[in-house]
Amino acid sequence: MKYVIGVDFGTLSGRAAIVDVSTGEEIASSVHPYANGVIDEHLPGSSIRLEPDWALQDPDDYLEVFKQAIPAALKYSGVSSENVIGIGIDFTACTMLPTKADGTPLSFLSEWRQRPHAWVKLWKHHAAQPEANRLNAIARETGFGDILERYGGKISSEWFFPKAWQILNEDPGLYAAADRLIEAADWVVWQLTDVETRNSCTAGYKAMWSKVDGFPPKAFFKALDPRLENIVEEKMKREILPLGVKAGSLTPQAAAWTGLKAGTAVAVANVDAHVSVPAATVTESGRMVMIMGTSICHMVIGESEQIVPGMCGVVMDGIVPNKPGFEAGQSCVGDHFQWFTENCVPYEYHQAAEQAGISVHQYLEVKAAAQKPGESGLLALDWWNGNRSVLVDVDLTGMMLGMTLLSKPEDIYRALIEATAYGTRLIIETFEKNKVPIHELIATGGLPDRNKLLMQIYADVTGLPIFIPLASQIGALGSAMHGAVAAGAASGGYDSILDASIHMAKLRDESYHPIPENKKVYDLLYREYLRVHDYFGRGENDVMKRLKELKAEVMSHA
Amino acid sequence: MKYVIGVDFGTLSGRAAIVDVSTGEEIASSVHPYANGVIDEHLPGSSIRLEPDWALQDPDDYLEVFKQAIPAALKYSGVSSENVIGIGIDFTACTMLPTKADGTPLSFLSEWRQRPHAWVKLWKHHAAQPEANRLNAIARETGFGDILERYGGKISSEWFFPKAWQILNEDPGLYAAADRLIEAADWVVWQLTDVETRNSCTAGYKAMWSKVDGFPPKAFFKALDPRLENIVEEKMKREILPLGVKAGSLTPQAAAWTGLKAGTAVAVANVDAHVSVPAATVTESGRMVMIMGTSICHMVIGESEQIVPGMCGVVMDGIVPNKPGFEAGQSCVGDHFQWFTENCVPYEYHQAAEQAGISVHQYLEVKAAAQKPGESGLLALDWWNGNRSVLVDVDLTGMMLGMTLLSKPEDIYRALIEATAYGTRLIIETFEKNKVPIHELIATGGLPDRNKLLMQIYADVTGLPIFIPLASQIGALGSAMHGAVAAGAASGGYDSILDASIHMAKLRDESYHPIPENKKVYDLLYREYLRVHDYFGRGENDVMKRLKELKAEVMSHA
Repeated sequence: MKYVIGVDFGTLSGRAAIVDVSTGEEIASSVHPYANGVIDEHLPGSSIRLEPDWALQDPDDYLEVFKQAIPAALKYSGVSSENVIGIGIDFTACTMLPTKADGTPLSFLSEWRQRPHAWVKLWKHHAAQPEANRLNAIARETGFGDILERYGGKISSEWFFPKAWQILNEDPGLYAAADRLIEAADWVVWQLTDVETRNSCTAGYKAMWSKVDGFPPKAFFKALDPRLENIVEEKMKREILPLGVKAGSLTPQAAAWTGLKAGTAVAVANVDAHVSVPAATVTESGRMVMIMGTSICHMVIGESEQIVPGMCGVVMDGIVPNKPGFEAGQSCVGDHFQWFTENCVPYEYHQAAEQAGISVHQYLEVKAAAQKPGESGLLALDWWNGNRSVLVDVDLTGMMLGMTLLSKPEDIYRALIEATAYGTRLIIETFEKNKVPIHELIATGGLPDRNKLLMQIYADVTGLPIFIPLASQIGALGSAMHGAVAAGAASGGYDSILDASIHMAKLRDESYHPIPENKKVYDLLYREYLRVHDYFGRGENDVMKRLKELKAEVMSHA
Repeated sequence: MKYVIGVDFGTLSGRAAIVDVSTGEEIASSVHPYANGVIDEHLPGSSIRLEPDWALQDPDDYLEVFKQAIPAALKYSGVSSENVIGIGIDFTACTMLPTKADGTPLSFLSEWRQRPHAWVKLWKHHAAQPEANRLNAIARETGFGDILERYGGKISSEWFFPKAWQILNEDPGLYAAADRLIEAADWVVWQLTDVETRNSCTAGYKAMWSKVDGFPPKAFFKALDPRLENIVEEKMKREILPLGVKAGSLTPQAAAWTGLKAGTAVAVANVDAHVSVPAATVTESGRMVMIMGTSICHMVIGESEQIVPGMCGVVMDGIVPNKPGFEAGQSCVGDHFQWFTENCVPYEYHQAAEQAGISVHQYLEVKAAAQKPGESGLLALDWWNGNRSVLVDVDLTGMMLGMTLLSKPEDIYRALIEATAYGTRLIIETFEKNKVPIHELIATGGLPDRNKLLMQIYADVTGLPIFIPLASQIGALGSAMHGAVAAGAASGGYDSILDASIHMAKLRDESYHPIPENKKVYDLLYREYLRVHDYFGRGENDVMKRLKELKAEVMSHA
């Protein structure tokens, strides 16, 4: 029996899983929480305060995952390191850091440790918004606007170059001292293998790289800022490896950290959402994977590279080799329901839920499930956290209408679920209109297990069947599958992610199918959704933005 | 010392107050709850069930108010009946009943007592909606549409002729047996005096009467239904008395009920909202009285009869003699906040309020009061119960936008208050545009005492100062003032309601004035309100109505 290890680096912890190569079954796993978690108030061991919107991490926390979680998982599993043939990792992205040429993070060096820009910038570090705004404006003004089209017309402040540019703007000395700017995903692979690689997924989705055109040309970077002209040569690598390739082998030092054998194959790095796609059985076009948690990532493989308005990105080799991977997203899904239960659910409901021995979410679900589509009379726009796809506008806010004195919390709860489902339907229709067909949905992440009503509503609203992967920790499975591909068939692994997916990725028997009479009502409601969506979202009435501006102005005088 | 008695007939009880004629001070009062309250399930002492939307009352409950509350108030006050010079009453409206020619309600007669239509139809009896719809349509089709203009373009199902027509349609035998159809307001005065009178206020606001044109012509009633052609001659009186006139004197029987002297002057009947206007010191144009409770009645006196779009009515002699009284309204104000606290306030807020020893409303008010205008980023349409003025559309529903994951219950609570204030501002501006100037607000009812934040927001949004009457039971005071006018100066009362108001009606020292920097922000927010108001309310997007229709259809298949 052969095994592979998948390590899934999340926002607050890393999880290592030991997976059976032949079946994909998870034998054991261990989670290691990051000691410094998300650093957003002051630097560790220091009184240096961070500005609002900052979110940093400590790269040492990632190494601790290798040192703690892998040995623990190995121990629980009873698997011998002799039988572990490969490792894969996936990471949040864009989560990036400055290092020296040997990979040492600047935050490990005493001369830089007190400088905020020396630390890892976590994906949700939002302080590079001015740089993102300037990048988007300059790209459009200087004739590089078509690069943006691959990203729904806008580069996010969360991505690589805005973050890099923020370092340059705010700490040019540190920027100069950084030999490398690198995704944490690639950095941890470097630490395991002593080989610096860059993966096609983060390069493509987060750093404006494309397989055909490479990174944007020097003229583009020069137009942003003359000091950025040579950023790729100076701080990065032009060579980008496709997913599933072997990055290198475990060094003796990394073998000592992990309890694995030196020489074990290590796969090129990957991103949490993207690695989940083949783990959800999808290696071909037509089947969209939805990773449903606080937000939704919509991942779909295409046959040809298409510009689809409002997506987060299209990248050749971005999900599986030699096919374009499309990503779209909704900013606020689980977060919505969490906000609602924290802020809008009355005392009596909490009491009743407690008496019934269920959570408030479950209690609301039971009540909302007793309703028919259209019964609440409510309609919402799911923009509590802005709109990612298809409007790409963080300044939009939530809307609900139809309330009467008889409206109940469960009505509002159901309307919020429905609103997120309409948002997903619009994403699907936008893909379909742009030659990326979708005929089936695969749902993973935390929500599908927690809310069956939500799943049925998504089936009814989209008119598509929804299937659920067998594995609940799908990121770790996807990483393990890439570890198996890095090891190769000759070592007991697989020669392609397609082969790995066939053997290791499975669906549950359980699935959701549209109920025709519900679909009919939702078709009508979706039309209403579209109309208010366009009214508030496409410039007919920019009241949401004006209210945000007014709020900012009022608060600035406070 | 002379005294007058005001009797205020509410929805659930009647209140009698003994008032000092010279100062307006309330010496004592007593409340008598109606034994049969609101009859909306089955007829008293019977298993006859009522349809939904029905709301009846028992006229005997009104007589009990005379028999119980007046003697009790007299006793508490220590006032001798010798010194009571007059009585006035005010009532909910349109609250109407069928009687015999001698005033005996059909519900008192055993042959009719088991018939639902024999009982009093309370103001909120909504089962005559089909008749109201037909009345409005036929009026427009047959060239009588301009009568509707005095009522904002629409006669309500709550008013006199829809209710009368419902009796005819559903129980023609009972309709034939009714010698009179009469407002309960006029009926109780009849019981006190043995004189049948009809007051200009209910005739004007509820029964389509005008001082110049009288009731609508026979041709109009014939167009509705040939059987209604002679309804005025057959069931009503053409002679309408202005407010403040003496209806008659207390009969020996009524003197025995009340403990008052036979021969005491009794004023013509009045309506709760309208009688409050002179009691709030207003007998002239320019000063709007807002009666603020579950809903708001906006009462204003004009100099000339104007058609103002969306008002509830304009009636010459409707508030004070020889001047047009205008009424407008918002359907949902206090009800809004009640709905919110019942449905949308989390457990923690209830706990914190309890610990602080205050109500949840007060707790929310404290939190919302800490905010600046514009800070919440929220904007709402206050249509949870439809919109009365200025859109006159019961099928509109609520809307809120601007929510983010950081929105808090107090933000929503404040936005609801602001929405009702924008609604009031729009009513004021609509009056002003139509030559009914308003430069000051007088606020009475339950809300002004309960919510100082709300009062300040109304001042800031409207840009007008707001004053509060000294009397908290303003309906009873207004009725007592009309009793004093019925008695006349010669008997120690007053010769006009103006004189009565000068002596008996007072304002508190406390008042609210617009804060200029708040006003500036609210001017911007009000513009946003107007735009979404018109978008959803004036036909650009009738989504609210379509959702209501869809809901009705879905539920009809349930």
